Amino acid sequence: MNAEIITIGDEILIGQTVDTNSAWLGEKFLEIGVRVRQITSIQDKKEHIVKALDETLKRADVIILTGGLGPTKDDITKYTLAEYFNTELVIYKEVLAAIEDYFTKRGREMLQTNIDQAKLPKDCRIIRNYNGTASGMWFEKEGKIIISMPGVPYEMKAMMENEVIPSLKERFNLPTIYKKTVLIQGIGESFIVDRIKDWEEDVEKLNIDLAYLPSPGLVKVRLMATGNDENILNINQKAEELYNRMQPYAFGYNVDSLQQLVGKMLLEKNATLSTAESCTGGNIARLITSVSGSSNYYLGSIVSYANEVKSNELGVDENIIEKHGAVSQQVVEQMAKGILQKLNSDYSIATSGIAGPDGGTEEKPVGTVWIAIADKNSVYSKKFTFGDNRERNIILSSLTALNLLRNKILNKL
Amino acid sequence: MNAEIITIGDEILIGQTVDTNSAWLGEKFLEIGVRVRQITSIQDKKEHIVKALDETLKRADVIILTGGLGPTKDDITKYTLAEYFNTELVIYKEVLAAIEDYFTKRGREMLQTNIDQAKLPKDCRIIRNYNGTASGMWFEKEGKIIISMPGVPYEMKAMMENEVIPSLKERFNLPTIYKKTVLIQGIGESFIVDRIKDWEEDVEKLNIDLAYLPSPGLVKVRLMATGNDENILNINQKAEELYNRMQPYAFGYNVDSLQQLVGKMLLEKNATLSTAESCTGGNIARLITSVSGSSNYYLGSIVSYANEVKSNELGVDENIIEKHGAVSQQVVEQMAKGILQKLNSDYSIATSGIAGPDGGTEEKPVGTVWIAIADKNSVYSKKFTFGDNRERNIILSSLTALNLLRNKILNKL
Repeated sequence: MNAEIITIGDEILIGQTVDTNSAWLGEKFLEIGVRVRQITSIQDKKEHIVKALDETLKRADVIILTGGLGPTKDDITKYTLAEYFNTELVIYKEVLAAIEDYFTKRGREMLQTNIDQAKLPKDCRIIRNYNGTASGMWFEKEGKIIISMPGVPYEMKAMMENEVIPSLKERFNLPTIYKKTVLIQGIGESFIVDRIKDWEEDVEKLNIDLAYLPSPGLVKVRLMATGNDENILNINQKAEELYNRMQPYAFGYNVDSLQQLVGKMLLEKNATLSTAESCTGGNIARLITSVSGSSNYYLGSIVSYANEVKSNELGVDENIIEKHGAVSQQVVEQMAKGILQKLNSDYSIATSGIAGPDGGTEEKPVGTVWIAIADKNSVYSKKFTFGDNRERNIILSSLTALNLLRNKILNKL
Repeated sequence: MNAEIITIGDEILIGQTVDTNSAWLGEKFLEIGVRVRQITSIQDKKEHIVKALDETLKRADVIILTGGLGPTKDDITKYTLAEYFNTELVIYKEVLAAIEDYFTKRGREMLQTNIDQAKLPKDCRIIRNYNGTASGMWFEKEGKIIISMPGVPYEMKAMMENEVIPSLKERFNLPTIYKKTVLIQGIGESFIVDRIKDWEEDVEKLNIDLAYLPSPGLVKVRLMATGNDENILNINQKAEELYNRMQPYAFGYNVDSLQQLVGKMLLEKNATLSTAESCTGGNIARLITSVSGSSNYYLGSIVSYANEVKSNELGVDENIIEKHGAVSQQVVEQMAKGILQKLNSDYSIATSGIAGPDGGTEEKPVGTVWIAIADKNSVYSKKFTFGDNRERNIILSSLTALNLLRNKILNKL
């Protein structure tokens, strides 16, 4: 069984919008054992939609169309589909009531074009949209299924998860796929591969599908197979083996972010955290506070960009800055101790480095970053040498600091 | 004249990779007056590539293929193209020398698969890749042009900009497109449209292509036309009109970010900035320090997540917090004054709000945010009511604060 995706709308073709929907759909289909064979992005023109449908229907069992369902005159998907499937448009009363409710709640005036959104093809199953005014449509033709949904990502995603995926699973008796992802920070893909060759061979023998998904500072290793008891057992075991073998780099499974994980650990210990950031410029604070409820363990940060702030606010000895430079073990350790005492937290993180592109020297090139982690008893610090890209250096420093904190909380530093 | 894009590789179809290349290519083509008619993402299978080429050649004048040019056995694009265009693979000596050089410089061992990357189709124009080892290929057939490039974004982009775009412009005598984008913060697309109806009509009469490109907290309005003298003059004038009419929201043109712009303004005035962040949790500091050279005007931040930090570090009166709550005009103004005095900066920004999803009350629902901007003489503060999404509230608060600072520096607050 295979699927194809057709995205409708000029905004993707002229580069106004990056098509993130298709990747999301590709992953969702993979999870129910369906392969997406092709993605086609086309203009919102009737003849183009018809042609794409004709061709795709020859190849795919399920076709997902996204886009072109808005209230403006450019949005012709609904009209084209009604014609294509030889049906007429009729007012769906529940849909109209929901649209009226949508506008009433927001105190906005309802125009004729909005009312027209309740006009939908007679011979099709309506997929209700609880996040917007454009309904989805489910057509069937010669055993094939054609589903049209709006292009707005959170509207489309809710419709897929709540209605389309469950319906497809039931209809085609699709397998449930089991997957587990091991999250690894601070070591590159090629080094991981080098370290786990024998493990990888074992995994392949078990017919578990393995994928490495790298992003700056992180590698996700995904294990996936049909979700029968044996496979679930094997995947869980192999994932745990990988997690253990990749210490101290591996930090969790599946969708955990380091900031979520560290937050949970602090909550469990009833411990608090503060940060003193120089080169990361507030990015660590931002990551920590991106987690809802972080105010239960995170006290705050002093972003000490200027040296005077390091000495006046964090108590770093001016002579030490003078002698060793702001990017030094001595300074970063004093920053970590300073913020810990000042905010009276149980743990603290400090960073000082040269994010670049300027400011590097022969001794301390761009990408040199000192990170310190303190608790009430001790300070751990380490020097890292990242690259020459400012944005990347800030991301890598932040993730590395959070992973060091994780190891500190586990008493491994 | 029209173009099509074919992306080759399972990683896009199974959702491992979001196809950002196509949007970039769509925009680049738009800039030389070429419309992308369709984007097709296919599997890396020979028959699939051949079928896509057959169909696309019927419709498009220029076809860009990306992906499938790596050194592994999955990468079959080159072999498929050689067969499709009836030519054989031969070693290109300059390419081989460049690959050898690439590995020598990085101190990495060169494998046979890497040497094989210098084997390329005999009857084609080679597009050199100075950022990697996979060369591009330029084929011609019956007046149509087929260009194959690697899928790695920065390799592909360099090849497009340095060789493909200039060659296509010369070959087809393509127009240069002139565009100017007006950047607007703090007012939604529909409100902008409502405010500039007559201006929009004028722009349309001048045959200037207009596009609204919204992202959280920002709307970019793009004016675009063929770059003749008259159009350039018209676009510059209309962009300036829009900029003036959309005050105090419009803040710049083209790729300026608010943080870059504010940084430039501070540098020009030789002034310094500090921040005191509560609900934005370090995100304003992060945005400001994402700009290289920001240490010349940015002193630092106190991220006062806990109330004790607000009182102990920023000097906010505990009784005031008790009486009015941390999310209040009184507190945010004291935060702004406190950080200004403490770090002795010329300007300061303070934020205090309820980012959500928890913590809202009837009086102060989630999304309530107070922002204050201070200089040595005065404090300006304002309450905003954003939405119920934590991430979005943080982004909107940060951008709004930066735009308020811009207006403060211009003495408009």
